[in-house]
Amino acid sequence: MPRIAYFGPSGTFTEMALAQLESTGIFDGPVERVAAPSQGAAIELVRAGETAGAVVPIESSVEGSIAPTLDALAVGPRLQILAETDLDVAFTIVGRPGVALDEVRRIAAYPVAAAQVRMWLAANVPLAEMYTSASNAAAAEDVAAGHADAAVSTALAGERLGLATLAHGVADVDRAITRFVLVATPQPAPPRTGTDRTSIVLELANEPGSLMRAFAEFATRGIDLTRIESRPTRTGMGTYRFYLDCVGHIEDTAVAEALKALHRTAARIRYLGSWPATSATGTPPPPDAPAAAWLADLKKGVADL
Amino acid sequence: MPRIAYFGPSGTFTEMALAQLESTGIFDGPVERVAAPSQGAAIELVRAGETAGAVVPIESSVEGSIAPTLDALAVGPRLQILAETDLDVAFTIVGRPGVALDEVRRIAAYPVAAAQVRMWLAANVPLAEMYTSASNAAAAEDVAAGHADAAVSTALAGERLGLATLAHGVADVDRAITRFVLVATPQPAPPRTGTDRTSIVLELANEPGSLMRAFAEFATRGIDLTRIESRPTRTGMGTYRFYLDCVGHIEDTAVAEALKALHRTAARIRYLGSWPATSATGTPPPPDAPAAAWLADLKKGVADL
Amino acid sequence: MPRIAYFGPSGTFTEMALAQLESTGIFDGPVERVAAPSQGAAIELVRAGETAGAVVPIESSVEGSIAPTLDALAVGPRLQILAETDLDVAFTIVGRPGVALDEVRRIAAYPVAAAQVRMWLAANVPLAEMYTSASNAAAAEDVAAGHADAAVSTALAGERLGLATLAHGVADVDRAITRFVLVATPQPAPPRTGTDRTSIVLELANEPGSLMRAFAEFATRGIDLTRIESRPTRTGMGTYRFYLDCVGHIEDTAVAEALKALHRTAARIRYLGSWPATSATGTPPPPDAPAAAWLADLKKGVADL
Amino acid sequence: MPRIAYFGPSGTFTEMALAQLESTGIFDGPVERVAAPSQGAAIELVRAGETAGAVVPIESSVEGSIAPTLDALAVGPRLQILAETDLDVAFTIVGRPGVALDEVRRIAAYPVAAAQVRMWLAANVPLAEMYTSASNAAAAEDVAAGHADAAVSTALAGERLGLATLAHGVADVDRAITRFVLVATPQPAPPRTGTDRTSIVLELANEPGSLMRAFAEFATRGIDLTRIESRPTRTGMGTYRFYLDCVGHIEDTAVAEALKALHRTAARIRYLGSWPATSATGTPPPPDAPAAAWLADLKKGVADL
Repeated sequence: MPRIAYFGPSGTFTEMALAQLESTGIFDGPVERVAAPSQGAAIELVRAGETAGAVVPIESSVEGSIAPTLDALAVGPRLQILAETDLDVAFTIVGRPGVALDEVRRIAAYPVAAAQVRMWLAANVPLAEMYTSASNAAAAEDVAAGHADAAVSTALAGERLGLATLAHGVADVDRAITRFVLVATPQPAPPRTGTDRTSIVLELANEPGSLMRAFAEFATRGIDLTRIESRPTRTGMGTYRFYLDCVGHIEDTAVAEALKALHRTAARIRYLGSWPATSATGTPPPPDAPAAAWLADLKKGVADL
Repeated sequence: MPRIAYFGPSGTFTEMALAQLESTGIFDGPVERVAAPSQGAAIELVRAGETAGAVVPIESSVEGSIAPTLDALAVGPRLQILAETDLDVAFTIVGRPGVALDEVRRIAAYPVAAAQVRMWLAANVPLAEMYTSASNAAAAEDVAAGHADAAVSTALAGERLGLATLAHGVADVDRAITRFVLVATPQPAPPRTGTDRTSIVLELANEPGSLMRAFAEFATRGIDLTRIESRPTRTGMGTYRFYLDCVGHIEDTAVAEALKALHRTAARIRYLGSWPATSATGTPPPPDAPAAAWLADLKKGVADL
Repeated sequence: MPRIAYFGPSGTFTEMALAQLESTGIFDGPVERVAAPSQGAAIELVRAGETAGAVVPIESSVEGSIAPTLDALAVGPRLQILAETDLDVAFTIVGRPGVALDEVRRIAAYPVAAAQVRMWLAANVPLAEMYTSASNAAAAEDVAAGHADAAVSTALAGERLGLATLAHGVADVDRAITRFVLVATPQPAPPRTGTDRTSIVLELANEPGSLMRAFAEFATRGIDLTRIESRPTRTGMGTYRFYLDCVGHIEDTAVAEALKALHRTAARIRYLGSWPATSATGTPPPPDAPAAAWLADLKKGVADL
Repeated sequence: MPRIAYFGPSGTFTEMALAQLESTGIFDGPVERVAAPSQGAAIELVRAGETAGAVVPIESSVEGSIAPTLDALAVGPRLQILAETDLDVAFTIVGRPGVALDEVRRIAAYPVAAAQVRMWLAANVPLAEMYTSASNAAAAEDVAAGHADAAVSTALAGERLGLATLAHGVADVDRAITRFVLVATPQPAPPRTGTDRTSIVLELANEPGSLMRAFAEFATRGIDLTRIESRPTRTGMGTYRFYLDCVGHIEDTAVAEALKALHRTAARIRYLGSWPATSATGTPPPPDAPAAAWLADLKKGVADL
């Protein structure tokens, strides 16, 4: 039974994302879930050979890219992303059995979660005082321990502790979606499906034009970039690090050519993998077959071209 | 006395950044500090005319761009950034007067802060149990109220409550710097200094090539981009929103020409201001004067050119 | 009365082009025509102050660019093109008065002209033998002197010598058009008309990418290149010289900005002038006014932009 | 014995270029030389199956590209260039045996040649009157027939007619070199040598940007363009035709990728062949092997990349 690390503790959204990945059959059977205290720690378990993979959040529709995950992938031995899954990060309000929502007088919450449901709490439990918990999962435990009547938590944490669900899908912002990825050691990418995503980390000299030249490698080949994130490398060398996602797979000729070109011209390139996208966004790279057939005919000396 | 909003509560790093800006003399005298519960709320106070400005974090060397700030600036009536200031976000350990560090048995911390000093705590107060507080400022208040012996907090919060400083500059990562900006209503930019920063928000059609063409406007003019952040607009129109910083000022001809070009070709452009950078990074845009003099001579018909 | 040099001798197509320019009123009255033995010699008369201008062919729809003219403009003191005119270079068959076309037994022609009407001669005067003349004008003179019955020449040459016109518009290729330009010393360009042409000579380092960067200066500004010619400079320095025409006038902001940018980045740029095009081809550069107004408002701090 | 057409008549520089190609052994034995009256006519003999190849001038260091050759290659069934050879086009002064240079009183010349040696004649045979001949070869024949004492001609023409060489290497411009190519029906290109030339004809929509995009296909791949010529297609469709030469061979991966990309994006592309260059000019395309090895390792899942 493979061990898979996740950004814990038990009951986090990341564990729910891991469960969602398990349900797709990607692991060929049950896995042992190993909680890690941070995104970086989960990723280090893979590098140390302690787990066969790690599930970590990589991008949130509200908060943007998850910088600690990106940095942990960019630095240290190369790892590879094998799959992604998207999760609605709406919260579940779990309560002591028998207590109705309008009877809640004290509500436990992780401060980060409390900030994301402030308006909902003001409208629905205006009289409740806040009790500060150490994580979303700990908030549910604080209810089980009698410190509060209800908690801002996850469905998974509530279920485990036998708490009642008072409300679900709770979020001040509609459709707060987080994308999670499954990270493993380098290996052949999953087969091309036609709606794939490829991710790289690029380091460029900090000169006007180096960036345009890098993007030209994608644009001239008709490759659609769907995520671009730039951060200084802080190595004091005046370089920037770019986290780029594009539509396509390393087995798409256009993508392979762009990777080769960047390998030749960029200060540094790291390939983070090609995997099936959860939804088809952007324009797939152009097919290579017609032009390749024409080229082959040219090389043979076929006349009518 | 102008009222300036900040991402509170009192004692946050953002308030320290506001204090740092006050010390530069930018406000021509004392200001009334107005705490707001979020970056967005601070910015809305400016839009509502309640305050003359707002100080908010925009970028962290550890966490990357602060998405809520960027989003609040991109959507709603246009505002303008007038100044920036950088802050080391290392924490201060404040304690009950008379208690030495090795006597601390219970330490209060905001969970986000606790995660950033985990290694330091394990090395320095290995026996202390954690007490969860609702913010960095609240952690100091929890010490003052007797719930804990010490707190992971800020120097400002400790001073206000008469607590002792047990350690300062505490952070697991060296040099965790956060950049804060002063936001106000649209107005003429502060005068060009030669080491300036200009910031825009750009929305581009999601087509291969539209991005390269946008970057070409900067690269062909020798303008150095120092921050690039991309996020989907989620308006269902297939557009991406880019947050771009470049070296230079709207009064630099190269920057002015690039802005005009993007106004003509991009789906949408919003100018967020030009202001003095705290440190000179990147290459300034090329001077316009020699080429402009040559062009003027051409128009006059001067012979030897 | 201004003296204007032309690529002679008297009776050439270039003299006809000069006559056509005179009829447009560009010279404000009659001119003294000065024949020169080559394109370069005509241009040198302007540089020497001997004539106020020179008319030379620059481009032929059959032969392409006229290299000696381009080279003479690229090297030596700068000159400026003030006007262009297009001429159908079809030949006129002129004959001894009283001789019909089917009675022609000997026909004089400049060999270059003979090559361009070979098929016409084979079809219309199949029995005539060829008599070689030193120029198109000399062919008509050879008829007047009794060396031949008819000549492949120009209408102008035939008229001057009192010869009969046996056929006109004679050419094996339909619509062989040559463009002629009026060259003078540097001076302010003729006013912008909205359908103008601007011409430059550019020298670029022979590196992959220097060319793309130069063209990017036009493309990013929406400027349409209508002629591109490249030749080695043969200075042994590995540079290439480009002769570029674009749609637009030096008073078009986009064109002015591109010129300034090339002045900054190219190894060498020479401006050859802006003048009214004889016909509207290509896309005019985009207007500057809307973007300039927006920029001015940004600088003033106008709110709703 | 293969028949090879050339731009005649006998004694032209083109025949000398054909002789030079024969001496390289490219034909595996003697050939039958077939004079054609024009570049286009020589090329049509290949298309008609009358000859196995044709030798035509394509570029002159003085006159630039030879437009009739380029046009004949661009239109009609595709042909392929197999080889090139460069020729100093300096003239030979051939004379009646026994006549010294200072005794020449009448000199025969093709007018185009006369224009290229005007200064030399003025300095060396100032008293001689000109006799107009129909071609360089005909000028030598005019000497043999007694019409003149000497001729501006070629060494080959003089030899054939038993004339004396009075001077050779005669040209007003130093090093006037013409490049000739051997054209045949489509066939596999000669093997890659490392200093090769590839030639294409490209038709592009007349839009700002289409040209930059086409050049980007070369620049982003590090391919050096060594000849660029643009002419309107005159098909009334607003397209331009570009004649491009680059350093490299269709078997260079970078060149093959650029060809495929242009096949996908250009209005029309015609491949004119890859062949050994007579001299190494420009930068060869970058080697593909290192990047290809890296890509292959990525696909296999090799760890340390």
